[in-house]
Amino acid sequence: MIERRDALLDGLPAFEPGWVWLVGAGPGDPGLMTLHAVNALAQADVVVYDALVDGGVLDYARPGAAIEYAGKRGGKPSPKQRDISLKLVSLARAGKRVCRLKGGDPLVFGRGGEEALALVEAGISFRIVPGVSAGIGGLAYAGIPVTHRDVNHAVTFLTGHDQTGLTPSSIDWVGVARGAPVIVMYMALKHLKPISAALIAAGRVPTEPTAIVVSATTGAQKVLETTLGAAAADLTLSGVEPPAIVVIGEVVRLRAALDWVGALTGRELVADPLGLRASEARGKSA
Amino acid sequence: MIERRDALLDGLPAFEPGWVWLVGAGPGDPGLMTLHAVNALAQADVVVYDALVDGGVLDYARPGAAIEYAGKRGGKPSPKQRDISLKLVSLARAGKRVCRLKGGDPLVFGRGGEEALALVEAGISFRIVPGVSAGIGGLAYAGIPVTHRDVNHAVTFLTGHDQTGLTPSSIDWVGVARGAPVIVMYMALKHLKPISAALIAAGRVPTEPTAIVVSATTGAQKVLETTLGAAAADLTLSGVEPPAIVVIGEVVRLRAALDWVGALTGRELVADPLGLRASEARGKSA
Repeated sequence: MIERRDALLDGLPAFEPGWVWLVGAGPGDPGLMTLHAVNALAQADVVVYDALVDGGVLDYARPGAAIEYAGKRGGKPSPKQRDISLKLVSLARAGKRVCRLKGGDPLVFGRGGEEALALVEAGISFRIVPGVSAGIGGLAYAGIPVTHRDVNHAVTFLTGHDQTGLTPSSIDWVGVARGAPVIVMYMALKHLKPISAALIAAGRVPTEPTAIVVSATTGAQKVLETTLGAAAADLTLSGVEPPAIVVIGEVVRLRAALDWVGALTGRELVADPLGLRASEARGKSA
Repeated sequence: MIERRDALLDGLPAFEPGWVWLVGAGPGDPGLMTLHAVNALAQADVVVYDALVDGGVLDYARPGAAIEYAGKRGGKPSPKQRDISLKLVSLARAGKRVCRLKGGDPLVFGRGGEEALALVEAGISFRIVPGVSAGIGGLAYAGIPVTHRDVNHAVTFLTGHDQTGLTPSSIDWVGVARGAPVIVMYMALKHLKPISAALIAAGRVPTEPTAIVVSATTGAQKVLETTLGAAAADLTLSGVEPPAIVVIGEVVRLRAALDWVGALTGRELVADPLGLRASEARGKSA
């Protein structure tokens, strides 16, 4: 447990009783929590956390705080969203300082907006604390940049299933396939086969580099490198389980150079995995 | 200045001499720095920062650390990317602990991947510290969620100009227009007129809600609410200057409910800005 009165938290907001703070915990590594998130945990009376919050993060809660699980995970029984919102309202009305802690960022496929709307309707005051999203920070720990000048000037983030558990019918796969050279998918393991087929039907190349980053930024992080065409089959063979981020695009090749986490335990990094400096050199000599 | 030996930083990595850490500072509010970022600043001998790093963040640097500006901003003379990479290599070779500090996240249109490749080529050890990106966290401070269940299951991030200062020719505007109901644009003020025209030509509606969030998460934050068709003209009238994030999509309407920063200074929030609960009620009574 962390001392509440910590110099690093001086000057950050006081958590008033009866307020709800919607807080992103980041992708897993507690070092990726923001100071505002730590400040929230240091003062909250109740922490309502979800399935994507890594255990180490909860060690930052104030000693004596109530820690309540309100997890939701695809396919498993879980509290209804409406019940979670009502719980937040009821705790706030009881005068508690309520920290609603979500993995990643609360507004990136985290339904934080819905919970905030329920608070507004109930007249509860709130604050939103953004976090590092797994689709960005989790990939960075795999050595995969979501943008890279020579590869892409656009990136699309999407969710592989919605609240019904199905692939969202609103997604325009042709638009997604054309819209950005890099596609980052949250909660996409369950429907990876139809999703990859839809992207290939829409013009993406089956040999396109693809990575599945499991339990990103935690001690259990695993990275499965594959291709768009082979991803679903390789996923089945690997037996890996959610949570995971799937990334499609040439940026995956940069992992050979940028896997700094691997390098910490001895992986040799390759200087020019895209072959750009080599081709520049050829261009000059021609 | 912050004491280096802070309990909150216990257990975080030691910064070895001769290493470079590529660190995201977040969008501006120092409270949005991660613990890893604070840990980097607390140990670095040299901090090489860019134009998008807010001043308050630099107060976390170790007393006595050298603070060097390597800013780049569209249209103004600035060090070349190659010069910055060479400087990082040379400082590391001199045995310094080098913190390369970037606004937002180093791998989201931040050219962190390029700098890391230069380090790999030179055989310098490095670490990447992700940060809260302005396109997510900055919008959260404007009360605009980048995703919301009733609006979008996909979001596209793009940059409005590349290293040449021009709109990236690689962007497929028809794909972007179709690919996601919400589009978040970095560095898009300079070319907002042709960009919005391209999106409208590709099928996006001129009345679509659009917001320009300036100096997000800082004391100077301003939010200009407009429409896609009027955005370029309203931008000119407003006289606002970069840095700014532009967001297009129905999520902008949620600001009426979710502008928690405004509510801190008395703004009345509207409970149901999308009119969804009202239409649910009508559906039930019909």
